[in-house]
Amino acid sequence: MQHYFVSQHLTVGQSIELPKTISHHLGRVLRAEVGDRFELVGDDHQVFEAEISRLEGNQVAANIIKPLDHNVELPVAVTIVSGLSKGNKPEWIVQKATELGVAHVIFLPMDWSIVKWDQKATKKITRLNEVALSAAEQSHRNVVPTVAYLSGLDALFQLDFDTQLVAYEESAKQGEETNLVKAVKQTPSGGTMAAVFGPEGGVSPAEVTQLVDHDFVLAGLGPRIMRTETAPLYFLSAVSTLTELI
Amino acid sequence: MQHYFVSQHLTVGQSIELPKTISHHLGRVLRAEVGDRFELVGDDHQVFEAEISRLEGNQVAANIIKPLDHNVELPVAVTIVSGLSKGNKPEWIVQKATELGVAHVIFLPMDWSIVKWDQKATKKITRLNEVALSAAEQSHRNVVPTVAYLSGLDALFQLDFDTQLVAYEESAKQGEETNLVKAVKQTPSGGTMAAVFGPEGGVSPAEVTQLVDHDFVLAGLGPRIMRTETAPLYFLSAVSTLTELI
Repeated sequence: MQHYFVSQHLTVGQSIELPKTISHHLGRVLRAEVGDRFELVGDDHQVFEAEISRLEGNQVAANIIKPLDHNVELPVAVTIVSGLSKGNKPEWIVQKATELGVAHVIFLPMDWSIVKWDQKATKKITRLNEVALSAAEQSHRNVVPTVAYLSGLDALFQLDFDTQLVAYEESAKQGEETNLVKAVKQTPSGGTMAAVFGPEGGVSPAEVTQLVDHDFVLAGLGPRIMRTETAPLYFLSAVSTLTELI
Repeated sequence: MQHYFVSQHLTVGQSIELPKTISHHLGRVLRAEVGDRFELVGDDHQVFEAEISRLEGNQVAANIIKPLDHNVELPVAVTIVSGLSKGNKPEWIVQKATELGVAHVIFLPMDWSIVKWDQKATKKITRLNEVALSAAEQSHRNVVPTVAYLSGLDALFQLDFDTQLVAYEESAKQGEETNLVKAVKQTPSGGTMAAVFGPEGGVSPAEVTQLVDHDFVLAGLGPRIMRTETAPLYFLSAVSTLTELI
């Protein structure tokens, strides 16, 4: 079934006018008909089964039929913090991280970032939030991850998380793989977790010092060297494995 | 340090003529000089530090200086079996799976594959093996993963693995997440593991029956719906988490 998000509160029996984008997708793109059903997520992340009650061009109305027992969110809210990387990497970090259950993605310039966003940041973040929305629809999430831009680590240090990690290649050699496992176990269910990933060049020694001073723990992600866009996906998969599979 | 693979056996003190591709990359692309060092992996997957002893255009010779204590391979040899998928998905399944430690990647047509390779298969597989090689160099693997094309599941069933899984979305709803963990624990160190992933459409009911009849175990990969190119990366990350981090 199709899966859409609306910002309003939903209750069974309610009849609602769907937003233009959803109406257009159902009516024009999918050529849906009155009586067709789909999933609709309200402001409290509860998923409902809805049925199309009226279709007039780009105006579609639906009835909320019943709540669905559907929760696919990770038990901890993971924030991926990614140094600005080249090309379409940010786009697919957002897409894949959304499929893998991320709650928030933050992009920020780091010492070894080759690219700068500056004025482009607002436009890019708007686009990346659209990517997150459509990925969240595709992977039937209860929550649409947010994507934000920060000016740098100092801005990050203003935020507060239960657990804070920095993915550090060298850690693999220093046997710090287990820090990831420890951190996940220490994060309470419903808690928050931030993990910092450097750009192509990696995390600079100065940044490592800064991060450690702000209580970020160095964590290895296994012995292999991963690209900047692959490491966050490994991390999210590891969090899922440790909290959802074991 | 740069990291290259050669097919011959290497021993300390040996002086070797490097293959054209490596010579060209060192000499022309990187403009390396006599005395520069790099990593060279021989036919037994042992990594050595090597030093350029002579540079003549596209002919580069090197001395094998010393063995390096470097093993980044997963304790189990994982074969990713992927139904033919569209566009450049196979290319980046191979690239990312190589970063994440895969041993072999097999592509085969499945019931719900939209694309066909047929005559294109040989050309595509050659290209995909090149992708695996350069990803293996980048992620400093001890082994270059092999990429192969099979005509279908019947050909797959001729192969033999210690553990056999099929990633099945429905399994998430049937609480079969833990089958993945069980399978990894049951696979002996140095053993082999195969995991089948459907194309965009997923695995057909007929294929599920066929796979189960051939002792493939249905395994969920957590509650979220992942795209065909994301699921194998989740799986490899989970295997790493369970065998290298815990």
